[in-house]
Amino acid sequence: MVHNISFTDSLRSRCEYTGSALCVGIDPDPSLLPACLLNTMGAEDAVGVFCRAIIDATADKAAAFKINLAFFEAIGPRGWEILANVLDAVPKQILTIADAKRGDIGNSARFYAKALLEDLSFDSVTVAPYMGSDSVLPFLQYPGKAAFVLARTSNPGGDDFQLLMVDGVPLYQRVAARSLSWEDESPGTVGLVAGATDLNSLSQLRRICPDAPFLIPGVGAQGASVADVMTAAGSGPVLVNSSRKIIYASSGSDFAEAAAQAAVAMHDELARYF
Amino acid sequence: MVHNISFTDSLRSRCEYTGSALCVGIDPDPSLLPACLLNTMGAEDAVGVFCRAIIDATADKAAAFKINLAFFEAIGPRGWEILANVLDAVPKQILTIADAKRGDIGNSARFYAKALLEDLSFDSVTVAPYMGSDSVLPFLQYPGKAAFVLARTSNPGGDDFQLLMVDGVPLYQRVAARSLSWEDESPGTVGLVAGATDLNSLSQLRRICPDAPFLIPGVGAQGASVADVMTAAGSGPVLVNSSRKIIYASSGSDFAEAAAQAAVAMHDELARYF
Repeated sequence: MVHNISFTDSLRSRCEYTGSALCVGIDPDPSLLPACLLNTMGAEDAVGVFCRAIIDATADKAAAFKINLAFFEAIGPRGWEILANVLDAVPKQILTIADAKRGDIGNSARFYAKALLEDLSFDSVTVAPYMGSDSVLPFLQYPGKAAFVLARTSNPGGDDFQLLMVDGVPLYQRVAARSLSWEDESPGTVGLVAGATDLNSLSQLRRICPDAPFLIPGVGAQGASVADVMTAAGSGPVLVNSSRKIIYASSGSDFAEAAAQAAVAMHDELARYF
Repeated sequence: MVHNISFTDSLRSRCEYTGSALCVGIDPDPSLLPACLLNTMGAEDAVGVFCRAIIDATADKAAAFKINLAFFEAIGPRGWEILANVLDAVPKQILTIADAKRGDIGNSARFYAKALLEDLSFDSVTVAPYMGSDSVLPFLQYPGKAAFVLARTSNPGGDDFQLLMVDGVPLYQRVAARSLSWEDESPGTVGLVAGATDLNSLSQLRRICPDAPFLIPGVGAQGASVADVMTAAGSGPVLVNSSRKIIYASSGSDFAEAAAQAAVAMHDELARYF
């Protein structure tokens, strides 16, 4: 990633090159890894080998890789070495998203931002909005990088608070509008996480945030057709994430080839709406 | 910690033993560590030595230690080894809080919970509410342990969303009430983070959640008198956190003695309202 252009421009440029908005989600749950790996090495090594194989197999179709930090954190100290090693396998022109959902303030937020955006050199990170401006601004201090603020998430519990009405407007829209305003004070880009499972919310978010990059989970395993999602997401920049459908396409020794084929299939479907 | 009693009972028992609700916040910012440590070892080692010295110096007055994970994560892989080593220095009868503010769903949340509550054996963890029930429930699957949900935080940005009115009730109260309902489905305890900087919110939270343990930051460096805070917090279980005022009481070679004295002073002040 070259950082003298904005994250959004890097995203558009990469999507134009690959021809789709495909983001491959790397969620290496040890219990779901192929037996051929687990039988020949420890679970920790298997996580690293699996992730690198998936990245190699899907890189030419991927606009971005979203890497879920929970699975590396759960390994303990070595997990962070494995994560750094996995990141080394990502070709420089492909955007990376630390799916960390961090949200803390002041020094703590600055240290999280440093760990993820400087030391590990992720291009972007997912962040939680509940603590407000001073929990997100430290992640926006990096030119060319982005913070994807959780706006409308695709999990069932997402309805608990995100749909509450505030002066006639659902909370998730207030969060999106306020979050975008933080970009004015910052060199970094504000993106939004907007799940594919609520198409109405997705199109409402695009209406109020026409130019913000959207990270859209929930298309693969969680339902919602690509056509409907791309229509709702409008013409603004997007990354459409698919995790399980790609990385767990086969649990056999052909897992990497199967992932490559699944990535091609998803890419081709997305390319029709690009 | 013995886990056949509830987190709240462990908390009450420890507070009765020490005579106050003092929680010592361990936020080891390398730029604030004593020069005598930084001059004789690397910054990473200094973080570990500093934390252990602070814990040893303040343990007899501490009901709990709140450990901020950002500073360990920023160190990289070794940070997690240092964190485990720091935790080893905490006497078993003192409650530990992983100040992690995690918030993710499904497998990811389960893996975060495993990393923090099982592998590192924290007694509790701070969690973000925005993603709703399925982001918090995995942290509530541990008998004797607790998840402190962010309700009303003490940072300036806390006002951005937490005070928004939903059907005549501020969002933070909706978050608190809903979060408490998740306890019905779980063996773990739901606690709330309620900052000392908004005494009205603190007393409102106690009114609607009379028995929930409150973790109260913002008494030391961020203002608000102990008397006012303890009055607002009512008679329910609390932990009153103080970080900088204790751990950075001196930047000289007497930092540990100074921290001990500051902990005694804070303990004695809190003890008057216990």
